[in-house]
Amino acid sequence: MTKRFSENEIAAIYKAITERRDMRHFVSGPVDPAILERILQAAHQAPSVGFMQPWRFIRITDYCLRQKIHLLAEQERIETAKALGEREDEFMQLKVEGIMECGELIIVALMENRQQYVFGRRTMPDMDLASAACAIQNMWLASRAEGLGMGWVSLFAPKKLQQLLNMPKDAKAIAILCLGHVAEFYSKPMLEKEKWARREKLHDLIFENTWKEKPDC
Amino acid sequence: MTKRFSENEIAAIYKAITERRDMRHFVSGPVDPAILERILQAAHQAPSVGFMQPWRFIRITDYCLRQKIHLLAEQERIETAKALGEREDEFMQLKVEGIMECGELIIVALMENRQQYVFGRRTMPDMDLASAACAIQNMWLASRAEGLGMGWVSLFAPKKLQQLLNMPKDAKAIAILCLGHVAEFYSKPMLEKEKWARREKLHDLIFENTWKEKPDC
Repeated sequence: MTKRFSENEIAAIYKAITERRDMRHFVSGPVDPAILERILQAAHQAPSVGFMQPWRFIRITDYCLRQKIHLLAEQERIETAKALGEREDEFMQLKVEGIMECGELIIVALMENRQQYVFGRRTMPDMDLASAACAIQNMWLASRAEGLGMGWVSLFAPKKLQQLLNMPKDAKAIAILCLGHVAEFYSKPMLEKEKWARREKLHDLIFENTWKEKPDC
Repeated sequence: MTKRFSENEIAAIYKAITERRDMRHFVSGPVDPAILERILQAAHQAPSVGFMQPWRFIRITDYCLRQKIHLLAEQERIETAKALGEREDEFMQLKVEGIMECGELIIVALMENRQQYVFGRRTMPDMDLASAACAIQNMWLASRAEGLGMGWVSLFAPKKLQQLLNMPKDAKAIAILCLGHVAEFYSKPMLEKEKWARREKLHDLIFENTWKEKPDC
């Protein structure tokens, strides 16, 4: 393995990182199986705590099942809106998922028998979630490079999705991934464009040797 | 933004994903501040649930503090070895961190006041950890392209690290990141090379419409 990549390669990495978006708007059309394979292989190259490779992928190819998953997300969308209080109406205006439109729907779950793994997880058992999130970030970047959009939907009740997919009780769904063709990528994160939240300044988030959060203004 | 990247750019993305390693062996020398800035900017481009940008970075530049952090990891290494039972000796042979050798030591933590954020977290509050893990994966890939190694150490008691860094009680340290120069990148994940665990076959981890784990052989 060479060490430092070429300048063009480095630029490509930063381009993928910068232009990746959490997509909720898709256009119809299937995902090329060869591209899907590359994207899933990218996931499987992610780091994992103690090399446990905790990620499991459930492709949803049954249309009725896709509808049921959409319903779970819709139920949670309404519950979330209520929980948001004064921002309820604003939230309900946002498009938060593209489950029915995307070419490929994939559930990512954490493996069963997770409790057997202690390496790097004795004090922080949720490190397998962190590993699976790294795998999903790989998928996001690979998808962006391939010209496909991806969205991570976390608006669902995990227990209900677990039942729907006949998952063992110690496995846990963490993502409904919408993958597919898009008309265009958002120029900025959609929630920034829609003024749901503003981009923080990076240097407000970097401290030295001790915590020092800036006071809210 | 263009859609599909060029073939060379796509190849660069997959190269970074494939050649990224969780590094524990470093050689001395500081990290160029301009490169560190790019790597942290890459982190800040990660997706985050409800655009909450939960990541905070604490650069450790004080040598005594670095020693104290190393001690925390060493204490947890011994506790983990005990918890592993019959694999205790095998575990103690592994190099699990490069805290004292790496050029740059960065703690990644989740922000304070996390409970205020409901979007995408009502049923799964740990989604901010997932977002921060995506940020760390961006750092890993950017570092690899820049020719720097990075390791994510999760062998520590989060409460002790919280106290050491004067973190608010609802903020949470999730990673001790070792970043720096390396003599070479491992040809395979170190835990695979050392036969701690074997690489799973990707297609054993992909199901369709329902959970179907292969029985252990």
